[in-house]
Amino acid sequence: MSIDNLADAFYDELRDMLSAEKQLVKALPKMVKHSTNPQLKKAFEAHLKETEKHVERVEQAFEDTGKAARAKTCEAMQGLIEEADSLLKEEAEPAVKDALIIAAAQKVEHYEIATYGTLCTWAEDLGYSNALQLLKQNMDDEEAADQKLSSLAKTINQEAMATK
Amino acid sequence: MSIDNLADAFYDELRDMLSAEKQLVKALPKMVKHSTNPQLKKAFEAHLKETEKHVERVEQAFEDTGKAARAKTCEAMQGLIEEADSLLKEEAEPAVKDALIIAAAQKVEHYEIATYGTLCTWAEDLGYSNALQLLKQNMDDEEAADQKLSSLAKTINQEAMATK
Repeated sequence: MSIDNLADAFYDELRDMLSAEKQLVKALPKMVKHSTNPQLKKAFEAHLKETEKHVERVEQAFEDTGKAARAKTCEAMQGLIEEADSLLKEEAEPAVKDALIIAAAQKVEHYEIATYGTLCTWAEDLGYSNALQLLKQNMDDEEAADQKLSSLAKTINQEAMATK
Repeated sequence: MSIDNLADAFYDELRDMLSAEKQLVKALPKMVKHSTNPQLKKAFEAHLKETEKHVERVEQAFEDTGKAARAKTCEAMQGLIEEADSLLKEEAEPAVKDALIIAAAQKVEHYEIATYGTLCTWAEDLGYSNALQLLKQNMDDEEAADQKLSSLAKTINQEAMATK
């Protein structure tokens, strides 16, 4: 595919994001399963529901491009999830493992924040107002999820410190 | 390796970061080469110099752990760089390609911001004051680099919009 203009770039990036969100829908149940802190489990369960909604919103955002909503494998998210997976397999004290899972999840959130940031800027430039609104909602959710994880980490890190 | 406590988690994450920064030292010259906007080229050249310094600081941060400064392949950064590489190979108008390169670079910056965020929090919890100071400096550089890219994107996106 040749990328001739910003509209092509937006379409390409949106396809990447659709793949990233779909990969995350599959990865989050593992994070729910392997985390032990009840509030953390609950946060991941809630974020899974949100992520399913994000997939729908990204699909809807394709409408402004006039092209089909087709995912294009996001290699970066594959790398992030592989890293998280190898982490989930490590033997660790429960609170320490929770701290590690939070770290991995925050990397995922930041990947999404960066990508939605680019997509929102481009949508604005291109006058894709419907897409902009949908993608901005997703970005706000990711930022809130990141902050929620930072807040949970405070307690969990203290528990992890106690397991010396 | 078994991760028994937060100190082990910190060490593991620091090894990941050392690999990430080293991978970036190799990847940035390609971004310099493929970008066309002179200010963008200059920004990447400056960030390459900073990144070389980041490697040194991460190596120094190991001192607080009392363990060897050994990198552990960061799969997530591998994925991010692979994605950027395939992007650099795409045919695109110069300004559009610059916009794409900025998008890829901001994902890398956010990966680092997320990881340094975790490392700084853990360093503080563990009383690793020397490591905390070094890693905080790196994090500040990454945040500044991300903002610099957002600012350059404003002009570059407008140029990309003109190549319809």
